[in-house]
Amino acid sequence: MADLPVLPHFGITIKQLVTHDVRFPTSQLLDGSDAMHTDPDYSCAYVVLETQGSTCEGHGLTFTLGKGTEVVIVAIQALQHLVIGQDCGKIFSNFGQFYRSLTSESQIRWIGPEKGALHLASAAILNALWDLWAKLEGKPLWRLLADLEPERIADCIDFRYITDALTRAEAIEILRKGKIGIENRIALLQENGYPAYSTSCGWLGYDSDLLRQKLRAFIAEGWTRFKVKVGSSVEDDIRRLTIVREEIGWERLLMVDANQKWDVQESIEWMQKLAHFKPLWIEEPTSPDDVLGHATIAAALKPLGIAVATGEQCANRVIFKQLLQANAISYCQIDTCRLGSLNEILAVILMAHKFKIPVCPHAGGVGLCELAQHMAFFDFLQVSCTTENRVLEYVEHLHEHFFEPIRMKGQSYLPPAQPGYLVGMRPESIARFGFPNGPTWRGGLKPSTGL
Amino acid sequence: MADLPVLPHFGITIKQLVTHDVRFPTSQLLDGSDAMHTDPDYSCAYVVLETQGSTCEGHGLTFTLGKGTEVVIVAIQALQHLVIGQDCGKIFSNFGQFYRSLTSESQIRWIGPEKGALHLASAAILNALWDLWAKLEGKPLWRLLADLEPERIADCIDFRYITDALTRAEAIEILRKGKIGIENRIALLQENGYPAYSTSCGWLGYDSDLLRQKLRAFIAEGWTRFKVKVGSSVEDDIRRLTIVREEIGWERLLMVDANQKWDVQESIEWMQKLAHFKPLWIEEPTSPDDVLGHATIAAALKPLGIAVATGEQCANRVIFKQLLQANAISYCQIDTCRLGSLNEILAVILMAHKFKIPVCPHAGGVGLCELAQHMAFFDFLQVSCTTENRVLEYVEHLHEHFFEPIRMKGQSYLPPAQPGYLVGMRPESIARFGFPNGPTWRGGLKPSTGL
Repeated sequence: MADLPVLPHFGITIKQLVTHDVRFPTSQLLDGSDAMHTDPDYSCAYVVLETQGSTCEGHGLTFTLGKGTEVVIVAIQALQHLVIGQDCGKIFSNFGQFYRSLTSESQIRWIGPEKGALHLASAAILNALWDLWAKLEGKPLWRLLADLEPERIADCIDFRYITDALTRAEAIEILRKGKIGIENRIALLQENGYPAYSTSCGWLGYDSDLLRQKLRAFIAEGWTRFKVKVGSSVEDDIRRLTIVREEIGWERLLMVDANQKWDVQESIEWMQKLAHFKPLWIEEPTSPDDVLGHATIAAALKPLGIAVATGEQCANRVIFKQLLQANAISYCQIDTCRLGSLNEILAVILMAHKFKIPVCPHAGGVGLCELAQHMAFFDFLQVSCTTENRVLEYVEHLHEHFFEPIRMKGQSYLPPAQPGYLVGMRPESIARFGFPNGPTWRGGLKPSTGL
Repeated sequence: MADLPVLPHFGITIKQLVTHDVRFPTSQLLDGSDAMHTDPDYSCAYVVLETQGSTCEGHGLTFTLGKGTEVVIVAIQALQHLVIGQDCGKIFSNFGQFYRSLTSESQIRWIGPEKGALHLASAAILNALWDLWAKLEGKPLWRLLADLEPERIADCIDFRYITDALTRAEAIEILRKGKIGIENRIALLQENGYPAYSTSCGWLGYDSDLLRQKLRAFIAEGWTRFKVKVGSSVEDDIRRLTIVREEIGWERLLMVDANQKWDVQESIEWMQKLAHFKPLWIEEPTSPDDVLGHATIAAALKPLGIAVATGEQCANRVIFKQLLQANAISYCQIDTCRLGSLNEILAVILMAHKFKIPVCPHAGGVGLCELAQHMAFFDFLQVSCTTENRVLEYVEHLHEHFFEPIRMKGQSYLPPAQPGYLVGMRPESIARFGFPNGPTWRGGLKPSTGL
């Protein structure tokens, strides 16, 4: 822990932790459908931290796909005794130590450790704490991070298991360099925004007409970067990608995403058959746990000009460390709810920088765009200091449920202005889509997912 | 799926799934304490499958450390709709497909996939199904496996994500070779048992006197293989290992276990300081997710004659595949509750055989010895066909709670005779240690963990 000025939040404590199971019936329209997740109901385990000694609340969530959200809720409740009563000044002064206390409780860690339902639960709590910290400082999260000393940011990271790839001293050195010219980059970000790509057109469940219609609407809005789901069958992928290239032409950017459908050799052979569509990357070709498998696929597809991307289901910083060490990925797709919030994400962004791999955060699920933008901004403002070869995922639905929905300028994310990280979901959305007792679920499903 | 005789269990269906949260207050005596789990209450999420059309029940569990067991219980309940009403003949005829339906449900898999709390829940259910199958056949599980056709065993495995290391055809070939001489090996097993080592002496929380006392008692019983926890501090490890070598001498076998305490470089440096105690292996030096880290440690410690072992917290077959591919381990420590029951364990045992790495199952936690012995017997009877360089973990406590507790002959496990896998925990134990309403927990803790 660095010798830094005392934080002003001592005396403010976490009084209560409230959870909500919120589920949107997206499966009715097949929004979000892919090769492995054929009928997702975009959902979340939602956390509100009430404080004593301040009027601020911390709001956080972890994204889920419907069934199983109740498991994450119970996991959050299993962890809450480690949070309630804690002093905010103490937490934020040595946030990396708090991260470890939450993720390494000696009995509970057995059902993780740092992975799966338990880690999603930790992420929801930690996301709410980061939201609270930003609100206490009166700043949007990206600005809080921009104002923190490099040593303070390093104190937020638990370096356990990654010192063979990144030491605390190396992290601080990267962050110090990132301070140079940061105000210029903030001005650029506020003027131009951060480049995005759209996944809204290419869900696997959409038919040909809807696919064309969506692509044309996005092209009309000026979009030039698109991602499409693949993996149901080679023939169907060829049919769909033919439509996509007919609509977007060859100048616009195309990425494809298999959502873990294939084995290692199958990934290589399948992508050889799709190579003439010239995708920039194949995302999640195989198991998110298979570091060596991704490395094999990456080596085989490199001569075809196809890169490998993964990350949205990579369990923790140890998996990312190895993906980087093994040259297994060319794009690093961190997820703001799969990883243990910024405490772990900051470490991954810094490691990716050291290994010269661009970070392109996963987003799209309910709340993920709202959260992920701050990660992309952090990378641009104070780590890589560039947007070159970087794109942030964009999906158009479910933003209306948040107090501070993302703001787009063309196909770029503009930085939010309100204090906080998630800032918060509207109470009327929590009430309406609350599971199982909200009117959407109690009274039989209605096709609308909006307010 | 192979073209095999029809199984006789069609028409028997799963009527109901009952769960129990059972916790033993082992932390009071520091039984089970190690560098990362300082005060475990050995516990389990327990599953009973009631059937329609037979008098048999399937009993299974997954081992936990106390807090968090309720999360696994809710995860089991989230999966139960995939089990209830299913036909046993259909399940066991294509058990690999059933495994996938349970572990890849399109919404629930997001909170795994195949890892953490959700995978522990799958393991409890699948363990109960294997118990049920063995009971329906009227055989102990090891005997059921010995009698199954190689193709039938292969049908129990989901080969997704592992075909680059082991194909179905390779698995069948290994199993066919394993049929040769199997009746001789069964006779040997019944006569001599399967070699074990003891972990009961070396818990980190035991003081010097208790350590000596335990070692002397085990030596008096004829034990020659011991495992000791390390990782609190180098000085303390040296103090404790000095005592251990004073008591057991240099002829008896010593293993040490750090329970994930260290980083990669730290593992190497720490073990260099303990090398003169000549441990056979260092177990779990670092994160269970760190395949490449284990490979680095293994390469560095090889010249010192120290092998690397891990597995009890390795999430799934994909992690084991990579540990084998990367030469990261010299001993493969499968866990019967961490992996998705035999459906996944059979795959790992077969892969380990192909990579010429001996399997030494993890055991010790409540119910784990009862389950793990069948895995060791399977490896001996029909895969590796040897016990050379293989040892099964043994811990002495909590066996009295089971209908078919393990039976030892000296320091060897004798194969059980009753039909089933877990067979079952005594109802009076479930009642007494049920959490939170059993008398042990409701009325304030009592130091005894036995009946």
